[in-house]
Amino acid sequence: MDERRAALRIDAHRLRNRFDALAEIGATGDGGVHRPALGTDHLRAREWFLAEAGAIGLDTRVDGAGNQSATLACGPADAPALLLGSHLDSVRHGGRFDGALGVLAALEALQVVKDAGVQLDTNLEAIDFTDEEGTHLGFLGSLAVSGAMTADELRRPGSGLEAFQAALADAGLTEASILGATRDPSMIAGYLELHIEQGSRLNVMTSDIGVVTAIVGLRRQNVTYVGRADHAGTISMTDRLDAGQGAAGLMLAARELVMTDFPDSVVNTGVIAFEPGAMNVVPERARLTLEFRAPVADDLARLGVALEEMVRAEARTRNLGVEIDEVDGIQPVQLDPRAQHALASAADRLGLSHVAMPSGAGHDAQVMARICPAGMIFVPSAGGFSHSAREFTEWDDCVNGANVLLQAAVGGL
Amino acid sequence: MDERRAALRIDAHRLRNRFDALAEIGATGDGGVHRPALGTDHLRAREWFLAEAGAIGLDTRVDGAGNQSATLACGPADAPALLLGSHLDSVRHGGRFDGALGVLAALEALQVVKDAGVQLDTNLEAIDFTDEEGTHLGFLGSLAVSGAMTADELRRPGSGLEAFQAALADAGLTEASILGATRDPSMIAGYLELHIEQGSRLNVMTSDIGVVTAIVGLRRQNVTYVGRADHAGTISMTDRLDAGQGAAGLMLAARELVMTDFPDSVVNTGVIAFEPGAMNVVPERARLTLEFRAPVADDLARLGVALEEMVRAEARTRNLGVEIDEVDGIQPVQLDPRAQHALASAADRLGLSHVAMPSGAGHDAQVMARICPAGMIFVPSAGGFSHSAREFTEWDDCVNGANVLLQAAVGGL
Repeated sequence: MDERRAALRIDAHRLRNRFDALAEIGATGDGGVHRPALGTDHLRAREWFLAEAGAIGLDTRVDGAGNQSATLACGPADAPALLLGSHLDSVRHGGRFDGALGVLAALEALQVVKDAGVQLDTNLEAIDFTDEEGTHLGFLGSLAVSGAMTADELRRPGSGLEAFQAALADAGLTEASILGATRDPSMIAGYLELHIEQGSRLNVMTSDIGVVTAIVGLRRQNVTYVGRADHAGTISMTDRLDAGQGAAGLMLAARELVMTDFPDSVVNTGVIAFEPGAMNVVPERARLTLEFRAPVADDLARLGVALEEMVRAEARTRNLGVEIDEVDGIQPVQLDPRAQHALASAADRLGLSHVAMPSGAGHDAQVMARICPAGMIFVPSAGGFSHSAREFTEWDDCVNGANVLLQAAVGGL
Repeated sequence: MDERRAALRIDAHRLRNRFDALAEIGATGDGGVHRPALGTDHLRAREWFLAEAGAIGLDTRVDGAGNQSATLACGPADAPALLLGSHLDSVRHGGRFDGALGVLAALEALQVVKDAGVQLDTNLEAIDFTDEEGTHLGFLGSLAVSGAMTADELRRPGSGLEAFQAALADAGLTEASILGATRDPSMIAGYLELHIEQGSRLNVMTSDIGVVTAIVGLRRQNVTYVGRADHAGTISMTDRLDAGQGAAGLMLAARELVMTDFPDSVVNTGVIAFEPGAMNVVPERARLTLEFRAPVADDLARLGVALEEMVRAEARTRNLGVEIDEVDGIQPVQLDPRAQHALASAADRLGLSHVAMPSGAGHDAQVMARICPAGMIFVPSAGGFSHSAREFTEWDDCVNGANVLLQAAVGGL
């Protein structure tokens, strides 16, 4: 790479000003933001992004899935675009780094290249994907772009069809426009995304940059143990069939199993409820969610088998019935080796330490990987907090990540 | 006792007709009834009761707490009344025996005595107490009668003040009328209640009748474990502080503790919830209810100490915070020895086997015991089901219980 391109750096002050301005939109007052996809504050953030891009002198477009792009024609006229981006939506009461950092770093990278007037082999595009977090339908924007969205899926949003369609109307989107947002893969050179790690591994390894090798696959199940509702005061301890005991046994045993036999995997029970749900009634039904993740397809399959056996064993030993309902799942995705190399080289040029690591969370990069070389950069999360107002990344780490994104973009994949 | 009184028996056919008619009111179609206190169907059941009592030729009255009485002046003019009764309200989607059997048996006993024209040492009163089950405020009726109700308590109903006051208005009751329902203890000779066992001990012991010795005391607590909300995919198993694990550990350990060290006690977790409550977020807060019961005050206290230590130990070993919020509690109540003797003698006269046993559930008898000699008769619950449409007692057992009630009433305490 020529020295001029290798010397390009983002303007940390300018990036910081935009970061702070964006964090005001939907600010929850405790350092976090509340910008569920297509809600009022998310729509405000989207308007703000288009205005910023326009002020820089970048062309902007919004596709039929609501994905917003700022484009820079810095390559040959008919060259494909290298996409840099992330998302502006947040989980409910989330943090201000998740998604936002990646979109702003992309915009900053385009501004640096534009101001420097350098010519690249590709055009550049900073993209903000719609509903990455799944307020309505996770990865809506990237699924539409990659052609993987279906009419069927659009009728089964997690938020319910009524809420989803009302939100689409507010944003000026329709089912037809979303399905029409598919792009020609031959015009996409690749996709690079900067994101906070959302965990503590970079801190533990004292590394500046994570170069993501794969995005873990996951499976989600609803498990329901079935016992018998009895008056909790009159039925003896030996006679009761307490569905809650099955749930409790599973939660402890599943954690133990993963820690002992699946060191690269995780398991979580995030939701639980007992029915009928009264202090003085033995639970007849205990419903809990079981979510487990593994970075390799084979591990995910083996863990699924082991957990199912465990779910059923907990029922058998307690004379309970049990039902397992598979909610959804996604296979692990290996990210592009060339993209990984480009990101590692960029970190090397910047004198930053880096480490290869899988991502435990889902990202638009896993969807974009279906149609183009996709890569991801992680920067450390102080304390490992995520999806919370306590989410925090040191500003120097944000700048490091943005510079890796810029350098990989100007270096090409 | 003279032979004429000793020969009195209830009319099983007449009792059955009333039982079936009452079970139609609020019938859920699966053998159960849904008559939450002061709701439409409970109010209909109350009207039905007054009409039945009137048709028999009994005087009726409704006090300021909504308690309904049918009275029979079968004793000296200024003699106190022996109260026989139970309640017409049910839990949500409850069974048709709980409460209803006791009220109808009381009405039947008065009819038999009236028709026989016998004179007793006391007058008789069949009473239906308001909200025994605690849809709004448990034992509302008996607490008011016994003078134990306070204005303070009336402002903290379990159903919320708004719902409670609306229900009172529907039933024509006010806070002032409830507090004015206190009765003169010198005019109450005693209180006898027939009820289904709601457990399986009479079946196990193949006994016809349970003579209740005591009503267990209970304590109810909300326990909240506090960990940290993290993205369930990105935080390692070792780094996460999962409040759900504390809840699960407690549920298993509490059951084990009671079964091993407190054979006469029970413990239940009937309600649980995790916050923030998302499949992909590690629970920051796990709230669960802990309800435990013991028939003797000393056991209840010792169990409380042991459970509190266990709650805190589960938090310590998992690096979680924990809060214990005492919701309510009631001390065990020993029922009147004379009443127990009168009930056992009545069973003997009828040739029924009987056994002394504590009640694991709360009943109006424990409240009435504050102001008069109180006794309770249990009849077997097939399968031990309770607070459920599957609640069932063989009709012969219902008749046996009603005859014990009648015979104890005519025998006197």
